[in-house]
Amino acid sequence: MIASKAYAAYNKSTPLAPFEFFRRNVKEHDVHVEILFCGVCHSDLHQARDEWGGSIYPMVPGHEIVGKVVEVGNKVTKFKAGDTVGVGVMVDSCRECKNCKRDLENYCVEGMTGTYNTIERDGKTIAQGGYSNHIVVDEHYVLKVSDKLNLEAVAPLLCAGITTYSPLRYANVGKGTKVGVIGLGGLGHMAVKFAVAFGAEVTVISTTPSKEQDAKKLGAHKFLVSSNKDRMRDYEGYFNVLLDAVSANHDFTPYLNLLDLDGRLLVVGLPQEEPKVSPFSLITNRRSVTGSMIGGIKETQDMLDFCAEHNIVAEVELIPIQQINEAYERMLKGDVKYRFVIDIASLNQ
Amino acid sequence: MIASKAYAAYNKSTPLAPFEFFRRNVKEHDVHVEILFCGVCHSDLHQARDEWGGSIYPMVPGHEIVGKVVEVGNKVTKFKAGDTVGVGVMVDSCRECKNCKRDLENYCVEGMTGTYNTIERDGKTIAQGGYSNHIVVDEHYVLKVSDKLNLEAVAPLLCAGITTYSPLRYANVGKGTKVGVIGLGGLGHMAVKFAVAFGAEVTVISTTPSKEQDAKKLGAHKFLVSSNKDRMRDYEGYFNVLLDAVSANHDFTPYLNLLDLDGRLLVVGLPQEEPKVSPFSLITNRRSVTGSMIGGIKETQDMLDFCAEHNIVAEVELIPIQQINEAYERMLKGDVKYRFVIDIASLNQ
Repeated sequence: MIASKAYAAYNKSTPLAPFEFFRRNVKEHDVHVEILFCGVCHSDLHQARDEWGGSIYPMVPGHEIVGKVVEVGNKVTKFKAGDTVGVGVMVDSCRECKNCKRDLENYCVEGMTGTYNTIERDGKTIAQGGYSNHIVVDEHYVLKVSDKLNLEAVAPLLCAGITTYSPLRYANVGKGTKVGVIGLGGLGHMAVKFAVAFGAEVTVISTTPSKEQDAKKLGAHKFLVSSNKDRMRDYEGYFNVLLDAVSANHDFTPYLNLLDLDGRLLVVGLPQEEPKVSPFSLITNRRSVTGSMIGGIKETQDMLDFCAEHNIVAEVELIPIQQINEAYERMLKGDVKYRFVIDIASLNQ
Repeated sequence: MIASKAYAAYNKSTPLAPFEFFRRNVKEHDVHVEILFCGVCHSDLHQARDEWGGSIYPMVPGHEIVGKVVEVGNKVTKFKAGDTVGVGVMVDSCRECKNCKRDLENYCVEGMTGTYNTIERDGKTIAQGGYSNHIVVDEHYVLKVSDKLNLEAVAPLLCAGITTYSPLRYANVGKGTKVGVIGLGGLGHMAVKFAVAFGAEVTVISTTPSKEQDAKKLGAHKFLVSSNKDRMRDYEGYFNVLLDAVSANHDFTPYLNLLDLDGRLLVVGLPQEEPKVSPFSLITNRRSVTGSMIGGIKETQDMLDFCAEHNIVAEVELIPIQQINEAYERMLKGDVKYRFVIDIASLNQ
């Protein structure tokens, strides 16, 4: 067994604190990764605080993992010691269902196995995430990462990146597409970078007028303040695609109204209260609301390769793991541009 | 001017009553239709009672019109006196926008001109519907109807028919598609007939267990009672397409959960309260909620031709116009199989 250090949530109300545990020994298809960086996703906080229910403690959050391979099982073919790799939101799936066979393990019929806060497919091991210095994962769920990129800024690609890349690809965003990105946070800022890279005209839609300059800096062409009803009316029927990355409670209808014929509102944010949606707004212009959950392993690799080719990474603020609780509080206030990333070396301080 | 008899709503609270008015004289592109039958749509009641707001009185409802051509303008090419024709939910549109040019006049950027309860594009004439003995319509918005079919049962095809045909076509329903039809009323019963004719496996989903026999009679293969939570759980992830024809208030989430990967909930019912939709349910299986509003003129003609070829008509109960107020009350109780159709000859009684 591989002794590992980590920070864990011990229950839903106390701060995350140091935790020691063991990773499984390397099996024949396994890759043992020494973790260098782990991004801090809003869903880490939701789950650490049991805001979605069913949380398993102690919980080591973290599913935006970048590290170096230290050892591989004897049947591993894709990786060798020294490789730079990533691990994202899932570490296993059934591998046999129609969706797994179509490279859509994220939609595994039996349910994908999350990187943490779940029981692994052996039926007993608690999966633990990336706020730790080691992880052991079946090679199929490990991604290749280019050393050309700044690795601390690569980490968020494993969740925030693929979560926005996949629906934008699914909606065929490209040259000529008018895309609106709702909410400029960890997910939203990646959506802007991808949509711009795909050749779309990109508008950031935000409640916060002061974000205009930041939006433009990220490559957005336009900026729309959602609380300005006159401006929102000017954009009725304007967009082909909207990506909704807002996790605060909100209704879909005011955004839906901005969509042109056959337009799609792509939902990746997960507010606690179920949003309302007007049937009248839906039937006008034959609009759709479409959900999307990360991406399959193949598409995640495609995304990482695309990022290496186009020099795309997240905007991050690196923190030592001892600041994770403070980072959670700042994240709740939106006080981060745009993703905290933990420097896992700090675990040894 | 063409003197016309009708029944009209004079305000939102009194019963519909006899009304006399004039239709415009036939212009060069116009078709003058003597109306034989007019279907009674739930939206007639909503608008007569101003339940959607903005109603214009006196209002002659009715947009499921079948009749005979009595006269045509000198530039009309598609029709001649004696032809059997239909008029549906719209009688005009801008004809120049990108949607009109793609045969999607129903999504006209300027807004299609409804058959009643709106101002015509001359800016002054109140459009009046089919609870009357004459109508004058530009030939582009008039449909050819086969005399092979029972004409009183054709009338509902002009709204209930195209409203369900169009989204089922848009969702590529065919052999191998698992379709669920939610709500077995005027719209739902047409959706069952079309989905069966397209070769799909069709399940009726209803709150009313006693409708099982009727559903099977219409051609449905399966029946699911939506209040039976165990049975609903059995069908989680089962359907490719759900058509939601329910106009009573309800949430989308319990139905969304029944959809397989990339499944679509097609919304054609128009409840007054905005339904809620769970983002967690949307992101699972990359599900969509998609609205649809009638269909373009070309697709409406395709639908009527398909019906003639496959001998598809609505199930109707013929009434004299003097019973329209009673019919509204029975419709509110769901006491109709499945569409009232007014015998317009009764206007002369």
